[in-house]
Amino acid sequence: MIGPVHHVGIAVRDLDAALARFRSLGLEPDAPEDVPSAGARVCFLPTPSAAVELVTPLGPDSSVGRFLESKGEGLHHVAFETQDIVKEMDRLRKEGFELVDRVPRLSARGRQVAFVHPRSTGGVLVELVQEPRPQGR
Amino acid sequence: MIGPVHHVGIAVRDLDAALARFRSLGLEPDAPEDVPSAGARVCFLPTPSAAVELVTPLGPDSSVGRFLESKGEGLHHVAFETQDIVKEMDRLRKEGFELVDRVPRLSARGRQVAFVHPRSTGGVLVELVQEPRPQGR
Repeated sequence: MIGPVHHVGIAVRDLDAALARFRSLGLEPDAPEDVPSAGARVCFLPTPSAAVELVTPLGPDSSVGRFLESKGEGLHHVAFETQDIVKEMDRLRKEGFELVDRVPRLSARGRQVAFVHPRSTGGVLVELVQEPRPQGR
Repeated sequence: MIGPVHHVGIAVRDLDAALARFRSLGLEPDAPEDVPSAGARVCFLPTPSAAVELVTPLGPDSSVGRFLESKGEGLHHVAFETQDIVKEMDRLRKEGFELVDRVPRLSARGRQVAFVHPRSTGGVLVELVQEPRPQGR
């Protein structure tokens, strides 16, 4: 089953300007990271509960680039943590949700992620996130 | 300063249909509550980190009703918890943010809330939330 809200994704055109705004709001960013599988540069701003993730396109031909073109800057997705993303994707497909990804893709920090299409969730782009397993000895 | 992400607000037209979708996704709702100050009926779905809040208008002449008219169903706002909402509103005003509310308003569960206008946050409707003080003896 899906677990805690992992982060809230916000689409921004100018990452530096957005970081300045969120610092003024009271949040401190981690280091930004490019995510080639998403065509995006992302920056997490952790809080004691869920994080905020700023997402900016690396080029116009990316999902977040098209989002910015059609809707402008603003809330983009909500991500839930899961312990077994493949099982959870399978469960959601059986529940009638439309998955954007056929298999999980590699994202920031070695996480595995997959998206559920807003067509099947009442307009909300939902992300599933599985943290990487800790390295065993 | 603002603290943890308290909840992610989602605007919905049909609360019962949305609750069925979010149950299928794996979240369990608390009891719905009318919030006259917002012209809305809300329902929280807690997770171990931030909650999801479904918001539906009680009538067309409400902020969330106008949001649904112009943008349709989807992510509506992100709320941060604060320990002193009046002080935090004052700080944000001085930082150049545009507050929707002049003073905090009463919301669900006896919380005090105030909104920051998306014009000043890069398109994100930001809510500040202060939980009610526990009753002393």
